[in-house]
Amino acid sequence: MDEIKTAILGASGYTGAELLRFLAGHPAFRVTALTADRKAGQAMAHVFPHFAALTLPDLVSIDQVDFSGIDAVFCCLPHGTTQDVISTLPASVKVCDLSADFRLRDVETYARWYGHPHQAPELQKTAVYGLTELARPEIRKARLVANPGCYPTSAQLPLIPLLRAGLIKADDIIIDAMSGVSGAGRAAKEANLYTEVAEGIHPYGIAGHRHAPEIEQGLSDAAGRTVDVSFTPHLMPMNRGMLSTIHVRPAAGVDAAALRSALSEIYRDEPFVRVLPDGGVPATRNVRGSNLCLIGVFADRVPGRAILVSAIDNLVKGASGQALQNMNLMFGLPETMGLDLQPLFP
Amino acid sequence: MDEIKTAILGASGYTGAELLRFLAGHPAFRVTALTADRKAGQAMAHVFPHFAALTLPDLVSIDQVDFSGIDAVFCCLPHGTTQDVISTLPASVKVCDLSADFRLRDVETYARWYGHPHQAPELQKTAVYGLTELARPEIRKARLVANPGCYPTSAQLPLIPLLRAGLIKADDIIIDAMSGVSGAGRAAKEANLYTEVAEGIHPYGIAGHRHAPEIEQGLSDAAGRTVDVSFTPHLMPMNRGMLSTIHVRPAAGVDAAALRSALSEIYRDEPFVRVLPDGGVPATRNVRGSNLCLIGVFADRVPGRAILVSAIDNLVKGASGQALQNMNLMFGLPETMGLDLQPLFP
Amino acid sequence: MDEIKTAILGASGYTGAELLRFLAGHPAFRVTALTADRKAGQAMAHVFPHFAALTLPDLVSIDQVDFSGIDAVFCCLPHGTTQDVISTLPASVKVCDLSADFRLRDVETYARWYGHPHQAPELQKTAVYGLTELARPEIRKARLVANPGCYPTSAQLPLIPLLRAGLIKADDIIIDAMSGVSGAGRAAKEANLYTEVAEGIHPYGIAGHRHAPEIEQGLSDAAGRTVDVSFTPHLMPMNRGMLSTIHVRPAAGVDAAALRSALSEIYRDEPFVRVLPDGGVPATRNVRGSNLCLIGVFADRVPGRAILVSAIDNLVKGASGQALQNMNLMFGLPETMGLDLQPLFP
Amino acid sequence: MDEIKTAILGASGYTGAELLRFLAGHPAFRVTALTADRKAGQAMAHVFPHFAALTLPDLVSIDQVDFSGIDAVFCCLPHGTTQDVISTLPASVKVCDLSADFRLRDVETYARWYGHPHQAPELQKTAVYGLTELARPEIRKARLVANPGCYPTSAQLPLIPLLRAGLIKADDIIIDAMSGVSGAGRAAKEANLYTEVAEGIHPYGIAGHRHAPEIEQGLSDAAGRTVDVSFTPHLMPMNRGMLSTIHVRPAAGVDAAALRSALSEIYRDEPFVRVLPDGGVPATRNVRGSNLCLIGVFADRVPGRAILVSAIDNLVKGASGQALQNMNLMFGLPETMGLDLQPLFP
Repeated sequence: MDEIKTAILGASGYTGAELLRFLAGHPAFRVTALTADRKAGQAMAHVFPHFAALTLPDLVSIDQVDFSGIDAVFCCLPHGTTQDVISTLPASVKVCDLSADFRLRDVETYARWYGHPHQAPELQKTAVYGLTELARPEIRKARLVANPGCYPTSAQLPLIPLLRAGLIKADDIIIDAMSGVSGAGRAAKEANLYTEVAEGIHPYGIAGHRHAPEIEQGLSDAAGRTVDVSFTPHLMPMNRGMLSTIHVRPAAGVDAAALRSALSEIYRDEPFVRVLPDGGVPATRNVRGSNLCLIGVFADRVPGRAILVSAIDNLVKGASGQALQNMNLMFGLPETMGLDLQPLFP
Repeated sequence: MDEIKTAILGASGYTGAELLRFLAGHPAFRVTALTADRKAGQAMAHVFPHFAALTLPDLVSIDQVDFSGIDAVFCCLPHGTTQDVISTLPASVKVCDLSADFRLRDVETYARWYGHPHQAPELQKTAVYGLTELARPEIRKARLVANPGCYPTSAQLPLIPLLRAGLIKADDIIIDAMSGVSGAGRAAKEANLYTEVAEGIHPYGIAGHRHAPEIEQGLSDAAGRTVDVSFTPHLMPMNRGMLSTIHVRPAAGVDAAALRSALSEIYRDEPFVRVLPDGGVPATRNVRGSNLCLIGVFADRVPGRAILVSAIDNLVKGASGQALQNMNLMFGLPETMGLDLQPLFP
Repeated sequence: MDEIKTAILGASGYTGAELLRFLAGHPAFRVTALTADRKAGQAMAHVFPHFAALTLPDLVSIDQVDFSGIDAVFCCLPHGTTQDVISTLPASVKVCDLSADFRLRDVETYARWYGHPHQAPELQKTAVYGLTELARPEIRKARLVANPGCYPTSAQLPLIPLLRAGLIKADDIIIDAMSGVSGAGRAAKEANLYTEVAEGIHPYGIAGHRHAPEIEQGLSDAAGRTVDVSFTPHLMPMNRGMLSTIHVRPAAGVDAAALRSALSEIYRDEPFVRVLPDGGVPATRNVRGSNLCLIGVFADRVPGRAILVSAIDNLVKGASGQALQNMNLMFGLPETMGLDLQPLFP
Repeated sequence: MDEIKTAILGASGYTGAELLRFLAGHPAFRVTALTADRKAGQAMAHVFPHFAALTLPDLVSIDQVDFSGIDAVFCCLPHGTTQDVISTLPASVKVCDLSADFRLRDVETYARWYGHPHQAPELQKTAVYGLTELARPEIRKARLVANPGCYPTSAQLPLIPLLRAGLIKADDIIIDAMSGVSGAGRAAKEANLYTEVAEGIHPYGIAGHRHAPEIEQGLSDAAGRTVDVSFTPHLMPMNRGMLSTIHVRPAAGVDAAALRSALSEIYRDEPFVRVLPDGGVPATRNVRGSNLCLIGVFADRVPGRAILVSAIDNLVKGASGQALQNMNLMFGLPETMGLDLQPLFP
């Protein structure tokens, strides 16, 4: 097989580094360009010393990259700047975008949540939302995949199949989600200092987090009607990991066991999604560093309610791992290629 | 003022140590007996080296204590063994019990959740549930106070006033709560090893945690009807701190601002409960080591819903701090005596 | 007693906040001015929400303070800017400076390590180096105290008495020290993000840390000759705490027991310095949040060597606690006033 | 290539699990037996839920294993019990022992440090000490490899080449080392609870840690004379990682640059040992989860001294990773097979 020449745009952040961790052992993709405009000229091993053992191209600015020699682009740029960059890439390049720029189909919703008009609405129409397990056929044919956000991945994997099957009600879904600090990126902010985060927890973005419309888009598609969700994220004193505790109302005649059974059936052969047996409790430590998503289903004591719990690594299945999973599909490769690493515990 | 001779039963655990931290600087209570049956004979500074600078009595077994010379007992014994011990104490001794043994008024509910019949049902009838801010008159007259659990404290402080006032509906309350590891005590268990807890999160006791009936007892009293709650605790990688994110449905015509306003009014003059202004987000780091409870109120995006958030230190307002607050009241002392320490941050 | 009107300059950093934690319960000092030039106009509870329960003056810029009404100044400004500010204060104001600006007597040494000439060399001559236990008479009479650095405090408390007594050799002292992240302050730097610090350790400033000349100044005074030390600090994944493991060579005929005995004797009546008995191991968790310094002395297996270990809280005995201890002395107050808080464990 | 049938004895501990993490992706070894006497009958995914995605044999007791069908044994049993077990294995089985039982050549030294006579002194004579980079020829021919301890690995990799070359003095070596908590294993001990370890540090086993004689054995061999080391380990609040800060005296005419140069030369082509360029500081976060050892060399300010710093993951290069590296050699496989995973950061 010919090597697939690969660029990572925005390689000086954590999702870029996480892609490199997987690509370093991937038999098909070869990283030939790494960009970071403000760190152009630096060695990757200077920016991320843990890669000192790898042979990697130095960081360059995006305009220094000759994209005619590039087959695959992982785009890890900040929200907002991504649209312009991807618009200029040659049509021959396949793109997986880890930003939020192409996730929302409705550009008006985008404008409302992101504070400016979408700069590439035509391109947006071609983007495929890359929740891998639930959109394989479209992803295989896509040229541009919008990689889902971390919270939306953790929420939609358990919810979408149940909504599609009509097993839960669409009008009373509450998601309390918790994320490790790496989700905030590597920018130097007081709020993310060790001293501000360690040994403490708090919610943030209550009723106003940008992942809410993304979740609602997917759930609405699944339910065939408009779905509003109550979504409250919390910051956790840990590097990685994301847990969503989701409160749902089963449809009439449906109990928690039926929900578990349905999810188990749907995800039975999935390499990365595992529905735990009765009593099994998802814990983020059991997916750390891996592309796994664990799902648990529980009867609630309150009649008419059930609880879904999902656990992922926010940087892997919630970002770079799913991106590689998607890119594997886009190039016709085995979906698990380069991704079959075990979790790191402890 | 004469010194109040004070015993801590079960002083080798974290709540016992936390009591000592506050009592060391308390002008009225003097610790004259510390018990720990399995560590009897040891110096307290051996069991807790951070107390090396204090002059303290050695640990003894309970039967070595002459309770005729004791005025106040803080009981930090394990659930279940407490009933027998407290039954034998002289009537002259005032008791604040930090276990769950006297929290549930209904001994049948106790038997169902704790797996054995209550051993002191008559004594139970005399116990006052010590959620201080909401039961001061009864606490002042009590001989036996059942100190509330940590989760119930964090849930009831925001919820009870709203239910009493009819400002929220009683039939759809969802509590996702998160606790630091110290809530699990000092017993050597694999599940609480650093390596099992650090850098990871998970729910536990889903739909089956023993604090659920305690919460429901208080909420039912407040609502004047039976209240069931959905209650899901999560274990957090931190020593201390407890956060409850609570989803409620305001009554017709009531919005989040009205809820906040009502709570602000009720808790206006409280030294330890603070309702944050609009936008204020409770964080456990801001109460660490203190007896404070911070409460935030938020409108949800989902129509008809609001979100309450409370933060406490599980070992202080959730255990030993509230116990001392109660004991201060029981002895006619200023409620804040010995408790006005600032949070430790960072 | 009249209240002592107190200003904290640079109150938006961790040492300023830590001073406030102790001053909030101090019967003599009343905080009447808090400065933070870049945050002037903000409420302290906005900058440090954990102080929401305190009534405090808003932050102002230094030039807004009327120092004629101020008796005591704690100066928590960055190194370098401090000299100018303190030079302009009225002579009637007593000053405890937590920066490094007045710690080094030799202004040439200062210039070499800090990269610019000292701006107030005459004022420097009046400064007293405030290692409290070892300089009480001078501190009591001082108008300007240079509060020791955290590493120098942890190293000098065990070493100076032994050098003074000639019990250890002056020419082969090796200090491996470890500090919590709060020592790096609250500035937003990538290197101090949670994600960069949690779950990892590394040395820094090897053979080039600015605390080395400060340590050497104190040790040289004690030894009556020039002392060079090998000093290697390490960054630890914890908020607070500092441990120094110090390798020394006892003088001829002296063993570890004799070193321990000598230190125990010297510090016998000290409220904040405790020399542990044989086998006692200092741990930072046992001093967290307190002004304590624990010292352990150990025979080494290597003939002719001994090991000293000291533990402090870098923000308390290593900064703000010792500053208050000094200010108590400067105003003729009991040295422990406001400082007798127990450690926070766990 | 035929599969190598592999057993892990003592698979319910962290080193056993860590072996499985690497073996899961190893093309040559196939795990056919996992033992844990007290957990016999349990599924591995019950003991370690992070392996839920793997197909693995259930845990059995050692006496249930038919070793005639086993080619390779990784022995992760506790110190002391290992000797008996390995003595009974068929001669056809190649063994890498991760315990301390066969590391010390001198059985009298063993008896002194481990408190009982060695049970298999003849077998001990056949054991090869498996510090891979420095003993490849012997390891390739060995039937029994004693895998080095974590601290000895981190200390010997930088020190042995320098002693062999006579570049440092043998009589004044001081090692201050720091380890993550996983080094203490998975046994439920109060001292290793999250609440006892998080946010604090302390030394332990001062002048009495069992890894000291192991280090001295290797250094003495290298120096051609008896070497005593001062060795002080410290417990760190992190899961994984080990740092050794080592103080040495270069030989006459040798400076730090010469030490670095020599180590760089010796380890130039090593896949897992990297000597950092001038100024490069080893940090454990940069090796987390990988088999890497980073080495830094620094001039000290004290004349005649230099500082070596090494960083490894205590569970990988300090245990299971090196064990697999050795087993690869013992079976004539490429040394890096299954081990070329990138560090997990953040």
